[in-house]
Amino acid sequence: QDLGVALSGSAEMGIFDNGNDNSQFFTDLDVTFTMTGETDNGLSFGATIDLDEAADRGEPGRFESPDVQGGENMFVSYGGATLTMGDTDGAMDAVMPEMALAGGSLADDETAHGGFDDQDGHILLGTDSGLSFDGAGDGQIARFDYSYSAFTFSVSAEQLNNGDGIDYLGVDSGDSVYGLGVSYAGDFSGVAVEAGLGWQTISDFADTYGIAATAGLASGVSFGATYSKTNLEDDVVTVAGLSDDSIDHYGLGLGYEMNQFEIGVNYGKYESDDYEVSGYGLAASYDFGGGLEMQAGYGNTEADDDLFDDDGFDTYSIGLSMSF
Amino acid sequence: QDLGVALSGSAEMGIFDNGNDNSQFFTDLDVTFTMTGETDNGLSFGATIDLDEAADRGEPGRFESPDVQGGENMFVSYGGATLTMGDTDGAMDAVMPEMALAGGSLADDETAHGGFDDQDGHILLGTDSGLSFDGAGDGQIARFDYSYSAFTFSVSAEQLNNGDGIDYLGVDSGDSVYGLGVSYAGDFSGVAVEAGLGWQTISDFADTYGIAATAGLASGVSFGATYSKTNLEDDVVTVAGLSDDSIDHYGLGLGYEMNQFEIGVNYGKYESDDYEVSGYGLAASYDFGGGLEMQAGYGNTEADDDLFDDDGFDTYSIGLSMSF
Amino acid sequence: QDLGVALSGSAEMGIFDNGNDNSQFFTDLDVTFTMTGETDNGLSFGATIDLDEAADRGEPGRFESPDVQGGENMFVSYGGATLTMGDTDGAMDAVMPEMALAGGSLADDETAHGGFDDQDGHILLGTDSGLSFDGAGDGQIARFDYSYSAFTFSVSAEQLNNGDGIDYLGVDSGDSVYGLGVSYAGDFSGVAVEAGLGWQTISDFADTYGIAATAGLASGVSFGATYSKTNLEDDVVTVAGLSDDSIDHYGLGLGYEMNQFEIGVNYGKYESDDYEVSGYGLAASYDFGGGLEMQAGYGNTEADDDLFDDDGFDTYSIGLSMSF
Repeated sequence: QDLGVALSGSAEMGIFDNGNDNSQFFTDLDVTFTMTGETDNGLSFGATIDLDEAADRGEPGRFESPDVQGGENMFVSYGGATLTMGDTDGAMDAVMPEMALAGGSLADDETAHGGFDDQDGHILLGTDSGLSFDGAGDGQIARFDYSYSAFTFSVSAEQLNNGDGIDYLGVDSGDSVYGLGVSYAGDFSGVAVEAGLGWQTISDFADTYGIAATAGLASGVSFGATYSKTNLEDDVVTVAGLSDDSIDHYGLGLGYEMNQFEIGVNYGKYESDDYEVSGYGLAASYDFGGGLEMQAGYGNTEADDDLFDDDGFDTYSIGLSMSF
Repeated sequence: QDLGVALSGSAEMGIFDNGNDNSQFFTDLDVTFTMTGETDNGLSFGATIDLDEAADRGEPGRFESPDVQGGENMFVSYGGATLTMGDTDGAMDAVMPEMALAGGSLADDETAHGGFDDQDGHILLGTDSGLSFDGAGDGQIARFDYSYSAFTFSVSAEQLNNGDGIDYLGVDSGDSVYGLGVSYAGDFSGVAVEAGLGWQTISDFADTYGIAATAGLASGVSFGATYSKTNLEDDVVTVAGLSDDSIDHYGLGLGYEMNQFEIGVNYGKYESDDYEVSGYGLAASYDFGGGLEMQAGYGNTEADDDLFDDDGFDTYSIGLSMSF
Repeated sequence: QDLGVALSGSAEMGIFDNGNDNSQFFTDLDVTFTMTGETDNGLSFGATIDLDEAADRGEPGRFESPDVQGGENMFVSYGGATLTMGDTDGAMDAVMPEMALAGGSLADDETAHGGFDDQDGHILLGTDSGLSFDGAGDGQIARFDYSYSAFTFSVSAEQLNNGDGIDYLGVDSGDSVYGLGVSYAGDFSGVAVEAGLGWQTISDFADTYGIAATAGLASGVSFGATYSKTNLEDDVVTVAGLSDDSIDHYGLGLGYEMNQFEIGVNYGKYESDDYEVSGYGLAASYDFGGGLEMQAGYGNTEADDDLFDDDGFDTYSIGLSMSF
């Protein structure tokens, strides 16, 4: 482990359709700055930022404002205890495994479809896919993890309004998101098992719990399932004009790895009495070694109500992915 | 060749006049991220971006959007064949040598005058100096090069509207720029010769061909000439209110290198029945070694019609150029 | 000394109150690019920029415009003589020691209070705290330093309007800021003394002189004092509706270092017949080694006139500071 500032990079080239039915060129690139340090008594610390978070298209230079999060994160760690702040997952997102189990694609089609849950945000708040409340504030999250044997316990907090209270949809929603979670990563006679149970809440607005597990067999096959549920406060249901006070998500994933080849498929669905969105995604990759992969992805979204104008849309991407 | 992410940099300090007749301070700096990889079977790949392209003043963070080009480029190469995508030259620009043959300047005065042709864009579209159609879309170019002996064959494409058709000046112009080119780099009894022949087209709008050659003698003297011509479709001529359906450019360059000293001069002219712009540029440099150069440049632009309010303008710059 | 481009970094995590009485999360990070070169005959040169200056939140990519300063600076040096351009201090700021003598804080509370003078700008022009004219133009400063024995002599210039004249408050103020300064750094029987005397002027607008000195004892105690005074031209006083043609600043600092622990306190006051602002700041730090520090800071600003609506405000921050 080198101390100081280390650089790593990635690039992608190919073609894709972002859902508008035009195939077009795809070019993307990123550089990551990883900083690592260690005190005399063995406490370790570090920080990272990506070039595309620093020079962000939507909010350039946001990382230089200490009161908000603009892609920067930093941690301090001692023994099994770690405190991370900034651009990091809330406790629920941190502990729950996702369903894209193998392969990958340039445009992340397999995780960008409408039925996927990456637990990075909440579908009702429009912060990202998922039923977690990460990003309900400015994304500046503090999470404490403690590892003990095969278990990791996580607690997280995010301020909704830089320490002030906030109204969501006209409902006084408190001032913070809190999260709790526990994850397990272990081996049962050759089967690699990961599982997580998480909970998050914005008091007076809603809470969500979620559970997910994956298993990886020695044959290269892996599979998993995820379930999460948001319960909305009565006020929120009334004010938002909903009829259902809950939203469910469930998802399934399947992956297969054989030598240089990987393929993954996943399906997911959001459900409430008010709306329903589902989707599936496919990703395949072939590894040339040295950091070069050929990748292809496909995503398909179906909405059974009037959330979208038509019944759905699909996206694909294919090309080369490089890591340096 | 180191694999991974490498950094290089440049900086310039001095004074300059950008054409407004005020001498002012000149400070500039850049950092380049160069990423290099190689697969197990010898296929090489890489990518680059500059800090001033990432944190761009006009369009910060544009490189993170895969559907447009924001300074990023990447390639994959095997044997004599290379595919490059993103911020790269179209086939015509790639093969044609330019006329700034020796020296250099802080503000690039010698190549920024109105008569220069760097083949980076088209004078009629206002994308850059030149008669090429690079940048007519979003600058996301794909170019395939194949080298055989002293020759390199190039083919390129750029989508005009992310896969959709586009109107230029009210004329339905198709959906892509295509380019072809061949270049030669060789040695004739001590004379280093570079030559290129290129062609580019936007169907239903215009096409351009160009030819250029340079020769470098053992005495340190080098010289060259360039010629290119755009033929506009009749529709374009009518709609744009022009009387001439073609635009010509020709240019000449002369350079001299002696020990640490270099000086270059070039002249160029755009001509059609509708307008005429010419200019010349001078650049001189003295190399202190280790990456430090003293540089001076001068550029003079003359317009014989009413394209500019006065007859012309001139620019200069002088100072230190550093490379790291 | 490595030639080429070197990276260093910093990160901070904690909580703070920026003066609005809400305690909130604090996350900050930066990466510095330091470029260094040397010619064959021993002339050294270099340049630096920070990632948060390149991808600046207010003016992203400003460093790529050579006519303004966007965080970049570069120098060339030979023997005791150094010429620096760009984001560097004017002669007065360069020579005068500041009063924050020990400790440090995440939000720089100890130097951000209203009575502090960092000589980075002028309180009347609103460019920064201080009575210097740095930043009165676009911040593109050229400074020449010559070191002789324990003394360094400095001369600086900044163009107010890229080589053109400018009006400040309706008063024709010339076209440049000029500065002069001399600093001393030496040792008197175990007492480390730093002192500086500086002067800056915008002709036809105002001039400022300043003097400051600090002393560091072997016991770990350090102390210092600073005084500066701006004299405004009569025209400026009239046009700005002021009654006093001068502004005074004085400040005091005290620091103490013991093993891993540091604490500093400073007080300062701006005074004229027209307004009066004072403040004090506290900073403490504990060094864990390897680049990790625990830091706490507090700043308090008091205004005795109607410059602020209330009598004052205070800020604090506490957390971890990392350097890589």
